[in-house]
Amino acid sequence: MKCKRCGEPAAVNMRQHRLGLCGEHYLEWFVSQTQRMIEKYAMFGPEDRILLAVSGGKDSLALWDVLLRLGHDVEALYIDLGIGERGYSEKSKEFVERFAMERQDADYRIVDVQGSHGKTVPGLASERRGRKVCSLCGLVKRHIMNRVAYEGGFAAVATGHNLDDEATVLFQNVLHWQTGYLVRQAPVLPSTHPRLARKVKPFFRFYERDTAAYTVVRGIDYVYDECPYAKGATSIFYKELLNQLEARSRGAKQQFYLSFLQARQEEGLFAQSRAELELGECEKCGQPTTAPGLCAFCRLWEES
Amino acid sequence: MKCKRCGEPAAVNMRQHRLGLCGEHYLEWFVSQTQRMIEKYAMFGPEDRILLAVSGGKDSLALWDVLLRLGHDVEALYIDLGIGERGYSEKSKEFVERFAMERQDADYRIVDVQGSHGKTVPGLASERRGRKVCSLCGLVKRHIMNRVAYEGGFAAVATGHNLDDEATVLFQNVLHWQTGYLVRQAPVLPSTHPRLARKVKPFFRFYERDTAAYTVVRGIDYVYDECPYAKGATSIFYKELLNQLEARSRGAKQQFYLSFLQARQEEGLFAQSRAELELGECEKCGQPTTAPGLCAFCRLWEES
Repeated sequence: MKCKRCGEPAAVNMRQHRLGLCGEHYLEWFVSQTQRMIEKYAMFGPEDRILLAVSGGKDSLALWDVLLRLGHDVEALYIDLGIGERGYSEKSKEFVERFAMERQDADYRIVDVQGSHGKTVPGLASERRGRKVCSLCGLVKRHIMNRVAYEGGFAAVATGHNLDDEATVLFQNVLHWQTGYLVRQAPVLPSTHPRLARKVKPFFRFYERDTAAYTVVRGIDYVYDECPYAKGATSIFYKELLNQLEARSRGAKQQFYLSFLQARQEEGLFAQSRAELELGECEKCGQPTTAPGLCAFCRLWEES
Repeated sequence: MKCKRCGEPAAVNMRQHRLGLCGEHYLEWFVSQTQRMIEKYAMFGPEDRILLAVSGGKDSLALWDVLLRLGHDVEALYIDLGIGERGYSEKSKEFVERFAMERQDADYRIVDVQGSHGKTVPGLASERRGRKVCSLCGLVKRHIMNRVAYEGGFAAVATGHNLDDEATVLFQNVLHWQTGYLVRQAPVLPSTHPRLARKVKPFFRFYERDTAAYTVVRGIDYVYDECPYAKGATSIFYKELLNQLEARSRGAKQQFYLSFLQARQEEGLFAQSRAELELGECEKCGQPTTAPGLCAFCRLWEES
């Protein structure tokens, strides 16, 4: 196969897009596609300050790289969850630091959960037997992202979620008909409160293999390991089912996710499931919460 | 495992219902569950005449047996599609005839597509290259069921669809967000025109393994082969994906289908996708159609 732009041998063959490109034109295509999605979905403009949540994995580091190349005003946030098993958090942080060190304009900050709250996320989970690490971790990350975005005056929080991630979450929500989640799953989630950040996912149209190819061609090093707590996770099982679907019918994942967005937009699907919740302020941290008194995050550290 | 009712060794262990029963109590449970669903979903009453579409397979023959045991006024309809490959239609018909021969009260009629229209369904498909056998077959069967039900004054057409069938169709419709289909998929489909039969699926809560167990314990012989045209069908692939899901998480199929019905009923999901189509009458057969002139069924035989 040859590059469609220059005729050189193709380095990346994107079967789902029916497009083969050489390394150079692949990078060009990938970067311009990202900017196209940012504009098409009105994610943010050139003046906006963006907080990018980075994990040290391929998607978030690729997005960091692309946003810098596009000249966006981006600062990365690494949340050190203190996952000690197989040195996961430490190793992930090193990839983030190395990425930043190799670039002049890569600003980032680290929030160390144990340093600021006295406990790691797995430590917290071990004290509260009823709760799973993954659910606690999600809660902790969402809180910190919202808080840092608010305090730093960022216009939006960006994450590296790709099409595979989005299709998997959609699949999970559909299997249980979680209409409350289905109404909110989107490439752009508007802010519903001044202290709740607007969330954007510029990579939502890329397959996981697209972002992987970008890091390979671009020479970005990232943490290969899955989080040790993700092992055997239902979401990984769902991802594999969707991979079988994609293997049988090319483009199936994309169609599943995009036709969902389309049906919701054009037919108002799930609009009736949108419950507007009354938001108060947490007595301790001031973040919005539906609970009286402390928010779910602050209760974590109080009770345990 | 022991029978929960009598303590004898269990013949059927329904893991998804967490229930083990001996043969006798299994039959009792299965029959009374069917009647419960017929009543709960107001499918039909004891006075209603029911037309049951039978294929010679396990689900439809099991349903025929159960409806007879419950004393319902049921007549079976076998549509001979003329599928000659591996003698499929012939063999299937023999199972229907044998079933009826062994029972005094089992009335049935046969509509032979080739006899009445001059061509078998595969013959028709071979002349019309653009159309797949399975799609033609569905059209032909729906037309004949509606016509026979109308001419015979039946209150409803019953089919043997089980939970696995329904979950598979739901899965297929969700993957493409076919909201026009999603709004209409239901255990009971009301009639929208005097000549369009009401459709009911009394087995929609049973797993395929439940209906299989019923035929085994009850000693009902049925055609084991899949239709030769179903080989490699996407629906079979989807069914297998759902089986993987069920194997990992027991009850997953049931939850998928039932939470869909619940969300649709309670939250009016897909209600906005309900398009009321203007129905005219086919110039040839008089059946309702959205097309001007001939209905899709009558056009099949005219054009080819």
